[in-house]
Amino acid sequence: MTATIDGEIAIIGCGLVGRAWAMVFARAGRRVRLYDADAAIADAARGRIAEGLADLQRYGLVDDVATVLDRIRTEHDLGAALKGAAYAQESVFERVDVKRQIFAAIDRVVGPETLIGSSSSGIPASAFTAEIACRDRCLVAHPVNPPHVIPVVELVPAPWTAPATVAAVRGLMEAVGQAPVELTREIEGFLINRLQAVLLMEAWRLAEEGYATVADIDRTIADGLGLRWSFMGPFETIDLNAPGGVADYARRLGPLYQRIAASCTEHRVWDETLIAKVEEQRRRQLPAGELPQRSAWRDRRLMALALHKREETKKDKESDDAD
Amino acid sequence: MTATIDGEIAIIGCGLVGRAWAMVFARAGRRVRLYDADAAIADAARGRIAEGLADLQRYGLVDDVATVLDRIRTEHDLGAALKGAAYAQESVFERVDVKRQIFAAIDRVVGPETLIGSSSSGIPASAFTAEIACRDRCLVAHPVNPPHVIPVVELVPAPWTAPATVAAVRGLMEAVGQAPVELTREIEGFLINRLQAVLLMEAWRLAEEGYATVADIDRTIADGLGLRWSFMGPFETIDLNAPGGVADYARRLGPLYQRIAASCTEHRVWDETLIAKVEEQRRRQLPAGELPQRSAWRDRRLMALALHKREETKKDKESDDAD
Repeated sequence: MTATIDGEIAIIGCGLVGRAWAMVFARAGRRVRLYDADAAIADAARGRIAEGLADLQRYGLVDDVATVLDRIRTEHDLGAALKGAAYAQESVFERVDVKRQIFAAIDRVVGPETLIGSSSSGIPASAFTAEIACRDRCLVAHPVNPPHVIPVVELVPAPWTAPATVAAVRGLMEAVGQAPVELTREIEGFLINRLQAVLLMEAWRLAEEGYATVADIDRTIADGLGLRWSFMGPFETIDLNAPGGVADYARRLGPLYQRIAASCTEHRVWDETLIAKVEEQRRRQLPAGELPQRSAWRDRRLMALALHKREETKKDKESDDAD
Repeated sequence: MTATIDGEIAIIGCGLVGRAWAMVFARAGRRVRLYDADAAIADAARGRIAEGLADLQRYGLVDDVATVLDRIRTEHDLGAALKGAAYAQESVFERVDVKRQIFAAIDRVVGPETLIGSSSSGIPASAFTAEIACRDRCLVAHPVNPPHVIPVVELVPAPWTAPATVAAVRGLMEAVGQAPVELTREIEGFLINRLQAVLLMEAWRLAEEGYATVADIDRTIADGLGLRWSFMGPFETIDLNAPGGVADYARRLGPLYQRIAASCTEHRVWDETLIAKVEEQRRRQLPAGELPQRSAWRDRRLMALALHKREETKKDKESDDAD
């Protein structure tokens, strides 16, 4: 379908996100070079990646840690990290001047064979690649944290990104087992944060106006809408929810949804009073001191869910093959 | 915590939703009476419930079909179905005159010991219980289909519903393994359809304006946001996504989300041109003739996910007990 990129991968920035990207590429068989402007962070990265891979192995998501780890090496020079690389994934601190600086540095040493994706979650590539020579080979490749467990990656081209760049990075992401989605042009929040934003704004409004508790609003998703959404998107969900498919559904329920959306146009700022109200309810459910343990629980559940989905997808394929 | 209702359950209306409710109560050990104004539907219901229970058994969600089925009997008289029942779940056709008629009929024969929940997905209880004597014992108890696989139930009181009614029905729903959420008062779309509405409206707008394909927007949820939302709600998700919890997150990201939401205030009607655009993309992914098979796939995946979540929750409890 789409071209895929063969060759080695450079990880630029070895924080949480960069290390997760290293696992994504290395477990899929790619050779990976790690680079961080802070040599201490670069030196510590491989060890922390080993821990992350061991976690994945415990949950059945990686077969052999040593083999995967063998594909990863550290480079202390940006040029050496990029030399001949097929693709570089940048994951430095999210501030426009920091992004500009690293892309300028990349531009000075990168060869013509390397495409460059930024993990930027909000700053569009047009804000930090406008003036560099390799800008047609740059785009945003925004993951959801952590990308070695949550597969979606948003590919967002700047106006000058070459279509071939988007196609090749899409192919690479598919090839390494991620789930790329492609925007045709830049928009604030891309897809992921836009969809999250509208849902959060309505959830906060319902809590503010006292229609339900924070815990009950959460349950509406976690024991309701979120179940189907963990393996089908919202369009497929409604396509299967009316006898005549999505068009039938849209004609029946469109007017209701438009009325609801039209009643949500006042976008109150989350001020300190409202934040305190939500915070107080959350802290009764989970004391602040237990946030780290609960985050570890979340990661464990995400890994268990990833394995569950992998097994179900395998069953789907076997059943398709049997047809 | 809350009082629970002991005693038998009346199912009023034996369509898809009513039959699913019968499975919910009977598998939890309750005795269930089935009633439908159409005697042929009532007579066929128990056999179709047996098929549904056999499906649940195949996915490890019911142990013994015969035992569960033994708890269910059919009554051809509304008074007999309700006599001495602790709770009645109404699931007739969703039209206000039909709801009014059945609630008036219930009111004529129901005893003072019976609470009554309506499966209404959109019509509030105030629209069909205003003039009946038992109105303080009526509320909406809205499930997501199918309720024997998706546990959330919205409890929505009318202005005259007694607080004790809400508390008792909440306790019953918890006791039979559902996940009740409680609204303090009526609002169009309740919680579930409001949260779905804002997400769908933005998804349709992004498709309309050509930012991404329908398939890629779906992937954003199914391989991204929907994973965490299948076991945590949106508040818990953001509470774990900043070092200082939800307040920290709200201060950092609130302004971005408010800007995004403020850019979504034009609520275009899903007109036939737009519906045709989405329909065309969906039909390329899934021909109309395959909708029924895909719906069966969805139900299979929901049952597998329900089992997965049950097993993970058990592990969570074991690990808590070990602490």
